[in-house]
Amino acid sequence: MNTIMHFFSSITNSSEPYMILLPLGLIIIFAKVLSIFCKKIGMPQVIGFLISGIALGAITLIPNQTIFTDSTTAGIDFIAKIGVILIMFSAGMETDLQKIKSSGIASLIVTSLGVLVPLGMGAGLAFLIFPNNNPWTNIFYGVLLTATSISITVSVLKELGKLDSKVGVIIESAAILDDIIGIILLSVVLSLGATNTSGGNVPFIGTSGNSNLDILYVVLFMIGFFAMCALLWWPINKLFSWLNNKWPRHRRIPIFGFGLAFILAYVAESIFGVADITGAFMAGLMISKTKSKEYIDYKTDGETSLLFSPVFFASIGLMLWDLNGITSNFILFGILFVIVGLLSKVIGAGIGGLITKNNLKDSTIIGVGMMVRAEVVIVCATKGIEGELLDDSIMPFVIILIIASSLIAPILLKLLYRHKKDDNNQNNQMNDKENI
Amino acid sequence: MNTIMHFFSSITNSSEPYMILLPLGLIIIFAKVLSIFCKKIGMPQVIGFLISGIALGAITLIPNQTIFTDSTTAGIDFIAKIGVILIMFSAGMETDLQKIKSSGIASLIVTSLGVLVPLGMGAGLAFLIFPNNNPWTNIFYGVLLTATSISITVSVLKELGKLDSKVGVIIESAAILDDIIGIILLSVVLSLGATNTSGGNVPFIGTSGNSNLDILYVVLFMIGFFAMCALLWWPINKLFSWLNNKWPRHRRIPIFGFGLAFILAYVAESIFGVADITGAFMAGLMISKTKSKEYIDYKTDGETSLLFSPVFFASIGLMLWDLNGITSNFILFGILFVIVGLLSKVIGAGIGGLITKNNLKDSTIIGVGMMVRAEVVIVCATKGIEGELLDDSIMPFVIILIIASSLIAPILLKLLYRHKKDDNNQNNQMNDKENI
Repeated sequence: MNTIMHFFSSITNSSEPYMILLPLGLIIIFAKVLSIFCKKIGMPQVIGFLISGIALGAITLIPNQTIFTDSTTAGIDFIAKIGVILIMFSAGMETDLQKIKSSGIASLIVTSLGVLVPLGMGAGLAFLIFPNNNPWTNIFYGVLLTATSISITVSVLKELGKLDSKVGVIIESAAILDDIIGIILLSVVLSLGATNTSGGNVPFIGTSGNSNLDILYVVLFMIGFFAMCALLWWPINKLFSWLNNKWPRHRRIPIFGFGLAFILAYVAESIFGVADITGAFMAGLMISKTKSKEYIDYKTDGETSLLFSPVFFASIGLMLWDLNGITSNFILFGILFVIVGLLSKVIGAGIGGLITKNNLKDSTIIGVGMMVRAEVVIVCATKGIEGELLDDSIMPFVIILIIASSLIAPILLKLLYRHKKDDNNQNNQMNDKENI
Repeated sequence: MNTIMHFFSSITNSSEPYMILLPLGLIIIFAKVLSIFCKKIGMPQVIGFLISGIALGAITLIPNQTIFTDSTTAGIDFIAKIGVILIMFSAGMETDLQKIKSSGIASLIVTSLGVLVPLGMGAGLAFLIFPNNNPWTNIFYGVLLTATSISITVSVLKELGKLDSKVGVIIESAAILDDIIGIILLSVVLSLGATNTSGGNVPFIGTSGNSNLDILYVVLFMIGFFAMCALLWWPINKLFSWLNNKWPRHRRIPIFGFGLAFILAYVAESIFGVADITGAFMAGLMISKTKSKEYIDYKTDGETSLLFSPVFFASIGLMLWDLNGITSNFILFGILFVIVGLLSKVIGAGIGGLITKNNLKDSTIIGVGMMVRAEVVIVCATKGIEGELLDDSIMPFVIILIIASSLIAPILLKLLYRHKKDDNNQNNQMNDKENI
């Protein structure tokens, strides 16, 4: 028996692509079973996906298990990445540009307060507990709390049919602005922090030796990205209108749509330093007014819901088990960091909502919707640790913040909307589709 | 400019998941454009996918390119693997079991000759050119030529609406048997070859020290896999019938179907040493008689066609550029190896077709349909090189054989079917779907 096992284990090297089939099969079955259960008890299905990831993550505790290896986890991450790109592409297509224009000032106020309050509270907490730290380190803890990732909120609002409501549009617009402000803050604090610590090895310092110039470049590249999108707008619109006239409701049109989303997401991140999900969102936005939009969105939803979306959310749940290297004197700060992270965004963005004349319930929804953190915080934290500004004990708490916000926000949103019948009911056509 | 590039390239590590978006976007756009062109000139679309892979593979020649890296290629391979699993799952669902039963003897004869002729001709060629080789090495070159991978043939037959025809069923049934015979041969020759060379380090030899026992185990495990499938048949059938009664035409049913296919494919390969695609095929076969089959197959087709299928075929095209380590005295043998590989399968399986009372055209179709080699040959060759039975210069020619057979078979099949109107036309319902 051992002989034959040894034989097959030697034929089937652990980095073989087929090794991904077991974790993938387990994830989609667990995710679907738990999401059916969640739907039954009136919870968003996304919660079921997340819990399935947490549950399956327990497998990683088994010594020498071969289900979640470095290789299969990398494969899952690729699929999760495609999932989040397609989710944001769909969100872009479903965004009503006219509404964003009309909510422009409101979104700007919501974003500003939704960034400043977490920045202030996070940095304040760090100064309180670590008064002797490099001040830039403490400020960086605040910066970590600024980045919102609204893909889960978008899914929940979609499931509730509220994506195109006034509140939904404010959240989406604010999240786009949030991404921009977030990356500027990251770049600024990293530059200044490294310049002032002398021990830091932030990679881009020392190439120009001039951090102000670096910040200028970052901002210019970000403006460059949106300028490129503006330039591409007309030709992309023409192309997709032409495709739709030539081959109406034909499979090749969503394929070209996916191609556009993938490439624009890549270009955003690799050339312009803007988050890839922002690129995918812009790709969706670009074709949101073409006649082919409805069919592309329908096919995107179909493609996502069967495989990519459960895998994306489960992969976030899986992260919980990635806890190591935590030091005991860091635990108090870490726990408070998570609590401040959750509350500060609700307070900041919520006050922004109140100022811009939303009622208390809508403002709370805005705050809760902006509360969710995801991969952007991880990227920022990694950057801070690499630049020797942050202690790497913060990582487990970053992951707890992501999972906690991902679990709490959908539940609160669902509860907040439960008795809210007075909202605009224009999206009832969503209800006859099964969601995610 | 360099500063900022350096900054972003350091933020965006080359193994980041987002890096896959560019090759993925390029592949699906190229694949779709070329497949539209192929359809226009009357060629199977699969050819367009393959050529797009070959064309994009040229990128790998550019020094320091970051599009096809080890990491992104691994990601593409994962997606290609999911693609081939879903293709074979769909093929299983579309297989008519009654027909396999009725074509049982025919398939057995086609398989036997389709294995013996390539084995004999391949080994004969090796003995002719390398008379001083270890005889087991020369026999192993023959074994390499035995393994058929019919996923491309299945796609083409599907596109032509002939998957369920008599010839289609013979090819599919023969390919299942082929897989079984192929892995037995591989195991037998590896065992005996290593036992007789003394210099070999085939991993499973030496654990039992008894190669006959190893072969027995391999065969027993293979029988074990099919026995397990037989045992699971009834409960899986009941489950999917129950699911369909509870939630008719609901998204969750195809999700559970995918889960079944992934897990059975994994179990086949990792526990029983049977190819994963055989496991996926069996998963499809198991539910081919349930009421939920039609909807699952429709959704599988939808999921595959937009992303997974183009990526799978393009990834085979990409392999062409993986040529290195080739020695000059090997070139003659390599070229003849490819030619013999192409012809011997057509001759062997074709004669099998004639013996079992198919006319010349149908027999040629059977031979051409069985001609295609894919990842199974690569696995076998890798195994032979690891066991020091094969020279690693054979690898580039294995890849050329795969690409040549993948390009030639679909073209020939299309030509052979062009004026063949007398075939059973029961599958015309396929024609109103757009194919792959």
